[in-house]
Amino acid sequence: MPRGDAAPERLVASALRLFARHGVAGTSLQMIADDLGVTKAAVYYHFRTKDAVVHAVLAPAFAGFAELLDEVERHPQPQRAALLVDGLARQAVQHRALYSVVLRDVAAAQLGRRSAAHTGLWDRLRATLAGPQADGGTLVGAAMFLSGLVGPAVDPDVLALDDDVLERAIRSAGRRLLGLDGVDATDAPRR
Amino acid sequence: MPRGDAAPERLVASALRLFARHGVAGTSLQMIADDLGVTKAAVYYHFRTKDAVVHAVLAPAFAGFAELLDEVERHPQPQRAALLVDGLARQAVQHRALYSVVLRDVAAAQLGRRSAAHTGLWDRLRATLAGPQADGGTLVGAAMFLSGLVGPAVDPDVLALDDDVLERAIRSAGRRLLGLDGVDATDAPRR
Repeated sequence: MPRGDAAPERLVASALRLFARHGVAGTSLQMIADDLGVTKAAVYYHFRTKDAVVHAVLAPAFAGFAELLDEVERHPQPQRAALLVDGLARQAVQHRALYSVVLRDVAAAQLGRRSAAHTGLWDRLRATLAGPQADGGTLVGAAMFLSGLVGPAVDPDVLALDDDVLERAIRSAGRRLLGLDGVDATDAPRR
Repeated sequence: MPRGDAAPERLVASALRLFARHGVAGTSLQMIADDLGVTKAAVYYHFRTKDAVVHAVLAPAFAGFAELLDEVERHPQPQRAALLVDGLARQAVQHRALYSVVLRDVAAAQLGRRSAAHTGLWDRLRATLAGPQADGGTLVGAAMFLSGLVGPAVDPDVLALDDDVLERAIRSAGRRLLGLDGVDATDAPRR
């Protein structure tokens, strides 16, 4: 691709690279312009603020949550919760570069949580994981799973795991936490 | 206690109350002075910056972690990990007001994580929970437990649980996550 191309998808990819290297706070719109060899005005044309860039960087993860929820909500519980755990594990690996930015970066995590709360995504994820009439144990399990998934990762060894090991580990942790170990979701009924 | 008393422990208690109400970012040294009916100079005498106040507010939780680690490290695995899970669940409830400030407040959480990393507490907690030669599943389980315990709580319903329900739920979630369900830690051997 020629330098000087400031298409939105190139801006977002550059931002993600720079966020991973310098953190959100350490990255400026000027740095994104320099990285792509375009003018700051060309960046401004698509994104007026760094918050707008962070939103655009996070957008694929949020879109993934929303699609997944639409899909699993066609199934009854407990398969619904099990399918959500499996799908979140898959997406955590799929959007791994993105998650690791959010996981490491408090500014991005805060903006992401505000966006998720604003769009009601968080409530849907919680409600689907815990199911109706959840007891304390299930509530804490669901909160722990979501915090552990998209909250600040505390362990560099986890970030170093292979994709398939990480996906299996997240899926299995989620199922153990939520008491979904025995639920076969491979041929879940639809309602 | 008479107004006008600026003893450090009163400053810290006032800061915790104000942080809970206004967030860390929304609380000033002046507000702490006003809350206690003392001059800002009296606050300054003990704490030069808000970061110093946040450190002092977090100190009991960190001291609790360090004491707990010293205690459980006298026992062999897997009792060591099980005792740590049980102790962290107990402390989460004991320091509940403090945790809920940290849990809700990104600024405090960030400072807390930096402090914990700086003092090596985080590494000890991780290593003790996961044990030696941990596989991917155990690493993810330990990271998820710690994130869920001291990371950003995502569920207001969890904050509303009774102390004993919350403690049991955290203990049981940690034990399930780390495969410690069958470990009896009531009469753990010492080495």
